Formats: sequence, C-alpha cells, structure tokens
Amino acid sequence: MTEPKENPLMEKIVSLCKRRGFIFQSSEIYGGINGFWDYGPLGVELRKNIRDCWWNDMVRQRDDIVGLESSIIMHPKVWEASGHIGGFNDPMVDCKVSKQRFRADQLFFAPVIIDRKIVGYVSALESETTAAEMQEQAEKFKRKKAIQGKLEPVQPRDFTEAKSEEIPLIPSPATGEPGSLTPPRAFNMMLQTYVGALRDESAVAYLRPETAQGMFVDFKAIVDTGRVKIPFGIAQVGKSFRNEITPRNFIFRSREFEQMEMEYFISDEDDWAKWHRYWIDWCREWLVKAGIPAAQLSEYNHPKEKLSHYSKGTTDIMFQFPFGVQELWGIAARGNFDLSQHAKFSGEPMEYFDDVAKRKYVPHVIEPAVGVDRIMLAILCSAYCEDQAPDEKGKMESRVVLKFAPRIAPIKVAIFPLLKNKPELVEKAKAVRDLLRPHMTVFYDEAGAIGRRYRRQDEIGTPFGLTIDFDTLGEKGDELKDTVTLRDRDTMKQERVKISELLQLLLPKIR
Amino acid sequence: MTEPKENPLMEKIVSLCKRRGFIFQSSEIYGGINGFWDYGPLGVELRKNIRDCWWNDMVRQRDDIVGLESSIIMHPKVWEASGHIGGFNDPMVDCKVSKQRFRADQLFFAPVIIDRKIVGYVSALESETTAAEMQEQAEKFKRKKAIQGKLEPVQPRDFTEAKSEEIPLIPSPATGEPGSLTPPRAFNMMLQTYVGALRDESAVAYLRPETAQGMFVDFKAIVDTGRVKIPFGIAQVGKSFRNEITPRNFIFRSREFEQMEMEYFISDEDDWAKWHRYWIDWCREWLVKAGIPAAQLSEYNHPKEKLSHYSKGTTDIMFQFPFGVQELWGIAARGNFDLSQHAKFSGEPMEYFDDVAKRKYVPHVIEPAVGVDRIMLAILCSAYCEDQAPDEKGKMESRVVLKFAPRIAPIKVAIFPLLKNKPELVEKAKAVRDLLRPHMTVFYDEAGAIGRRYRRQDEIGTPFGLTIDFDTLGEKGDELKDTVTLRDRDTMKQERVKISELLQLLLPKIR
Repeated sequence: MTEPKENPLMEKIVSLCKRRGFIFQSSEIYGGINGFWDYGPLGVELRKNIRDCWWNDMVRQRDDIVGLESSIIMHPKVWEASGHIGGFNDPMVDCKVSKQRFRADQLFFAPVIIDRKIVGYVSALESETTAAEMQEQAEKFKRKKAIQGKLEPVQPRDFTEAKSEEIPLIPSPATGEPGSLTPPRAFNMMLQTYVGALRDESAVAYLRPETAQGMFVDFKAIVDTGRVKIPFGIAQVGKSFRNEITPRNFIFRSREFEQMEMEYFISDEDDWAKWHRYWIDWCREWLVKAGIPAAQLSEYNHPKEKLSHYSKGTTDIMFQFPFGVQELWGIAARGNFDLSQHAKFSGEPMEYFDDVAKRKYVPHVIEPAVGVDRIMLAILCSAYCEDQAPDEKGKMESRVVLKFAPRIAPIKVAIFPLLKNKPELVEKAKAVRDLLRPHMTVFYDEAGAIGRRYRRQDEIGTPFGLTIDFDTLGEKGDELKDTVTLRDRDTMKQERVKISELLQLLLPKIR
Repeated sequence: MTEPKENPLMEKIVSLCKRRGFIFQSSEIYGGINGFWDYGPLGVELRKNIRDCWWNDMVRQRDDIVGLESSIIMHPKVWEASGHIGGFNDPMVDCKVSKQRFRADQLFFAPVIIDRKIVGYVSALESETTAAEMQEQAEKFKRKKAIQGKLEPVQPRDFTEAKSEEIPLIPSPATGEPGSLTPPRAFNMMLQTYVGALRDESAVAYLRPETAQGMFVDFKAIVDTGRVKIPFGIAQVGKSFRNEITPRNFIFRSREFEQMEMEYFISDEDDWAKWHRYWIDWCREWLVKAGIPAAQLSEYNHPKEKLSHYSKGTTDIMFQFPFGVQELWGIAARGNFDLSQHAKFSGEPMEYFDDVAKRKYVPHVIEPAVGVDRIMLAILCSAYCEDQAPDEKGKMESRVVLKFAPRIAPIKVAIFPLLKNKPELVEKAKAVRDLLRPHMTVFYDEAGAIGRRYRRQDEIGTPFGLTIDFDTLGEKGDELKDTVTLRDRDTMKQERVKISELLQLLLPKIR
C-alpha cells in the first residue's frame, strides 16, 4: 500500500514487522484498506509498554497531572468552537478524467522553458525524485515537440502556487495530459457519521481528529471535582481519525491513529516560554528513556508567520526517519484560545478562580502532543540493527537485532531449556518461567538449536535470554546447581546467575 | 439523560461518579450527547486497572493466548461476511406525529377487554412498571369512555408481536393517540462513514460494532507469524460503536463502548462444551477477583430456539444491577461460522494445519466477550456501601464507602501528614509518598481534619490510608520513630507500621 519501496531500510523494517507479528495491514484478506493498520501480538505489547510508560511518567508519578478519557464522538458544536469544521481542511485537486484526487501541496508542476519562452508544463507527485522526474519529462517534451533551443532547468512549485491561467495548462499526473485538473478546493479531514435514528443534518457527528478538545470541554468538570490547582495538566491516550488523502510512510501517517496528548494549564500571568521549554525538554528526555538516541532527535521551531493568530510558539521534536527528518512530538503554546472559544460557543464560563490571589482568569495552555504510532515507528527504526554474530559452529553470520530499551521491549526475558527432550530441563525451565512471569513478560521456547532460539529473540528485541542446562540441574556439582546462563542481547555476553537472585537482578533493569 | 431517576441507589451512584470525577456526561457544556460518556481522573484509573488486570490474566500470564489491536474501521466486506450488514438490525417503530422512534421490543401494547370484547388499546415503553402503568391506562380508558362491564387484567405484548390490523389501533406512547405508529422496520445499528476523497458507495465504511471480527480476519496472519498451536486464543481490548436507539441505564448501554473480547480456537474434534464451561468458570472467577461478590452473579443459558443456526450454546454471566439482573459477560460457542464466512467472502483459506495429526481443518471458537464499561458499572454498584463511622468527636455519622478490591482501586494508598503547617510532618509524608509512588498509585492530601480526609478517600475506594504524626518524628521515643498509622478502609482499624516495612506489607495486598 504505502510502503516506500524505494527505501531499502524501510523495506526491511516493514518486512520484519509483518514477519514477526508487529504490524499487519488492516483487513489484508480483503485486499487491505488504505491508511489503516492492525497490530499483532508483539506490536500490541510494544504499544502497551509505550502507553504505560507515558502514563506512568506523565500522570501517576506526578502530583500535578490527572487523566481523562473522553469519547471519540462528541457533540458537533465542539468542532465548530475548535475551528475544525471551518478550518481543518487540506487543499485538494481533482483530475476530472481519472477521478483521482491529489493534495495540492503534494502535486508539483513547472513550466518547460526553452530559449526563455514557456512552451508547456510538466507535473509530478511529491517523492524523493520529484525534481529529477520533472527534468526528464521536460527533456522528453522538448524532443517530442522537436523544439530547438536551450532548455532551462525545471523549477518545481507546488499546486497551491499555480495561477488560475496556469491550471488548464498543467498536465494531470494521472493522465499526463493538461486540461483535467481543477483549482484547489478545501476538503475537510474529519470523518463524518450520523448518530441516532435519523439521517439528517441534526444527526451529523464527527470522529474526533484530536483528543485535545476533550480536555478543554471537560476543563470545568475536572476543576470542579479533581482538586487540581494551577499549574496542572490533563492527559489522555486515545484514538483519533483524519481522512488523510495520501496516507503514507507505513504507520507514520494513517487515517486511524492513537494520540497521547496533555494540556498543561498555566496562569495567564506566568512565563509561557519557560513552561514551553520545560515540556520540550521533558519530551526529549522521555524519548531518550524510551530508547531513542538523543543524536537522532532535533528541534524545529515553526516560523512566526506560519503560526495561527493565537499561537505563541510551536516546537516540533524531529526524528531522523529512514524516509527523512519528520515531526515526532509537537509542543505548542496555544494561549487561551481553546478555552475562550468553548466559553463563547457553549455560554459556560471557562474561568479558573485563584483562591490565593482572589482573581478569576482563563488559563493559558502548553500542549505536548504525540502519536503512539509515530513513537512506535521511531522506536522500531532506531532499534533496528544488523551486525555479525557467531553461529553454532563459530562461523560469523549476519544478525538482525531490535535494540529496544528493556522498559519498552515487548518481551523482557526468553527462557530456554537446553534440550526439549530432557524432562528435568523442561521442568526446571518452566519453574523459572513461573517464577518470573508475575513480574515481567516472558517467552518460553524449547524448539530448535539454542543459537537459532537466540536469533529469534534478537530479532524481536528481547533484552535477556536465560538458558537452563545440565549445570543448572547440578551435574557439575553444587556450585553451579540452580544457576542459569543469562545472555545479553546487545553484547551477546553470557554470565552465570543464581535462580534465586534473578528477580532482584532483572527487575531494576527492565524499569 | 438516561439516568433512571426512579432508582434511588442508581441515583446515588451516578451522583457520586460525577461529584468525584469518575464519570461525566460527554460534551456536557454543550448539553451532552446521548449515549456517550467521558471518564474523569478516577474513572480513567479504575478503567485502566480493569483493562490491565484482564490483559495480565488473559494474555501475559498464559502461554496460549496472544494479543491483537485491529483497526476500528475495517474493510466493509468484513461486515458483509460477518452478517452485520444484512442482519445487525433492531426492529424500529416510528411515531409519524411526534417523529420519535422506539425499539419494537421495548414498546408494549395490550387490548383493553371489557366483558370479553376488545374496546381499545393501551401502550407503554418498557420499564419496571410497564404492566401496572398499562393496567391503570386501561382503567382510565374504561372510565373515560364510560363503558360498563368487567375489565380483564391487561396482558402486555411487545410490538414485534402486533398484527398488522392491530397497529393502527395502538396508541403512540409519545402522543397517547392511535394511528401514528408505523409497522416495525429493520434499522442497522452500525455507524457509517466515508473514507477517502469521494463520498459515494465506494467510500462507505463502518465503525466496528464488535472487536471480535478483527481476530477472525487476522487469524491467518497470527497463525503464520505468532508460533501458536491449537488450542490458542487471540485477545483484544478496544472501542466499538453501536447506534443504539435507546441508550440507557447510565454506562450500561451506550453508543460508544469498550470491549474486552477473546476468541479461543479449538479443534473441530475437541469437546466444545468442556471449553465452554472452562471459560464460563474462568470469567466468574475473574469477576470475583475483581471484587464482585459471587452471590451477585448468576448464569443464563440462551434457549436453543433463540440461538443463531451456527451457535452451539451461549451462556451469559448475569449481575444484579440496581435496575435489575442484566447480562455482564457473554460466553458463546460459535462453531466455525466466522472463519468459514471469511474464507467464503475473501477467497482466502482459513484452515489450520495440525502437524501432529497431519490434517487441515477450520477451527471452532469459544468467545468470552465483555465490556469495560459494564464491568466498571458492576464494580461500582457492588462496591457502593453506606455504613456508620465515628466522627472527630466519636459521634456516629453515616459514611459512603466504595469497597473496591485493592487490585482494582484507582488509588491504592492515601498519605496524610497529621498537620499541614508542621514542615517536619509534611516533609516526612512526602518522603513516604516518594517511597511508595514508583510501585503503586498514591494520593497525598494535607487539607482539612484527618477524619474528613479519611472520608474523602473512603468515598473513592482507597483501601489504605497512612498518617504521619508526631510519633513518626520520634516524639514518643525510638520505638515509634519512623512508624506510621496504617488505616484499613473497610474495618477502619488502625495499626502502627514501620516505614521501612511498608512496601513489603502493601505490595502483596494490592496485587
């Protein structure tokens, strides 16, 4: 579907994710559905760990942040107030002949200029090779039309910049012929449905395009019941939906996705820039704790002229994906726009009463917003690794490893009896499994050579492997009895550890 | 909205849930949206504990069950194969005058019979008093029409049983007059949307009405990648949507809800009844571990003649809600219907290869399906309790307690410095908070008299309270130094515990 075939690293990651049950295309047996993904057994555990770590660090370990789960379908007025009905639009271009639709900012065009005269137009959809493709098209055009003279290098612009007199001259990327493209038109990205018995305007409702509005709409209810004092935050994890025209880059941009958003309310007199910086740093540190190397992260400040009128500043934490540096976590200082809008549209005051200063005001807000899917993809990409490891006979072979941080890894410990046809080994291995399982995710595997079992776990990022062998049973004497081999995924080093000391050794490592 | 005002216990629970931030009406500042609920700070923690306990017991602690998260919007063919497009209908009746719509099986009617002659009809919507209400209507009818003779007791039937010649004679519950009700018509309960650029038949998609189909559609992908062997299960937690015409009983029946479903695949030659019983017992035990008294649970076997043709048996675990005994957890033996349907509609084989018996077959399935919201409501109802407790001066006063099982309670331990204006007490209390917080949810509270602080925690079901007093600081000598008072929510008994022993004392109690 949207797998970038031209990117070998992405291809490997996509293939591993499918092969090992991290990520499947949704409804694959029916040919799939574009922009939707399913998460298999290992994918679910990885996502659960991402969510749980975020929830723990963001809510449970702090005094100043509380949780919320608001419904996906809310009153439609919410989206009038938030501006999503009026403004949540992508400019779209239709091709009247092919019936295809393109995002205007992803459709590029350029005049073909020979001897300083415009002799025609070329176009292409955004990709890593857009410019080269269009240059080639221009050369072909020149040859085909047999025009003599000097061809200037093409200078692609996107379709939002096309002048009305240019539009009829630009070829459709679908047909190669001009004349079929419409001017860009606004296309609302919210998915719409009807709730209730009737199917008319009164029943229209939307699937939320972000979880954030839930926090604003319930702000008063939480202030009234939650014993919170400014500065405080409301955090939520949940699904959102956007009718993206061109879902792409695997799970990076999909139509159904899961967000982790937090609205941090501060006094209108407080220093917003200080809090903005606080949350950028917090998010960066969190990503590093989740196993993403700091060196792969950077910051992008949205230029002032591109910000909404109410926004004081937005910084994106960027990650070096295999398909380019892209937004991972956005931290926006939104002023008091959202609360003020809801006060206006609902008629309910959205003020906070400061009982020390004895004054009422509408709080300002800092919003760190991130997607579970994007973090999952960033973690998969940064964890993916190929190195060399010795096989059974000591010969070096290439090894695929997912170097997940232990706190994020779907399975913490794999447990292997050396041989599956020795009941004493199997029994002992299962006893070790039962000892550890109440405290961490384990995987018991008795099938195949021990080296192959290690490789299977390396490939899914299990940080620790335990082998139960004849020494464990006491065949080499009492000193090694009831010890096991603990293997480290990354260094592949092995050490001998007492079973009775396993828990206290492993527990701090997986937190 | 749908709060059953006539039920004093439900009223108290609904009011507590709102007052303490467990459950809010969705979009309340805009007048709400019928059938949708938001979960506040304590509600979210309660739900997270329900989900995490289920996931842990169902997936992580077992070798034979793996997880899945499939998308809410799937390929529309899925719902053709599952029968939801053709058959997921409620028979609905419209009142042409009031424009109201009723579920036919919730609209009751009866002929008014005087001296063995039908002289008219009465009707009422389903409630606990339907029959009495209709009897009263019949008596009123007799008086109003001044008909002499013996009135027979009314015998209510639901509207699906109304004969076509009766329909024009039955009064609408909205207007009280006959002539405006339509015959029952099928009304599909799936919420529909459009995905992609166009808004035509080709773009129609549905919000899933159950998570179960995800497990069937991804069955092959999981068998191929998950190293699973029959018998095995696939479990999922996630949102589902049904366009219920009459959402009611608080969060019992809503339009957006969260399911925890598991499909357990067994051999076609295995004894399904044995597995069916196994899962019924498992679910009952789980509910008891979650704090629901066994005595409030019962079983209801769907009668054979009401089962779908493919179903071998369905048993519901019922719970005594304040509004009646209702379904809590359904355990269905579904044969191989679902996998066979998807094989037929997708053209993909849905067979499992048994590599010991060397034979292929389509597995049968047992499905325990439950809603997070229903379990949450059952837990709230069974935990709600009013008793007597002494106030500050020893006078007995009434106390509201939520007797949550500690593993489910939103907050495990509340921590109180005896006085908030003694820095040594506050500092020590915060040290205790920081000691416990990495391991459990805690709430630090320094505001108000200690008795009031206890009451506030009782009302939200916090099982343990710790008070840091002057003895903790060593004012009564070394023996009591660094000890705290541990108060039990249910018995209200207090004991003195060493801070250094708190973790090992509390951890086993909250698991």
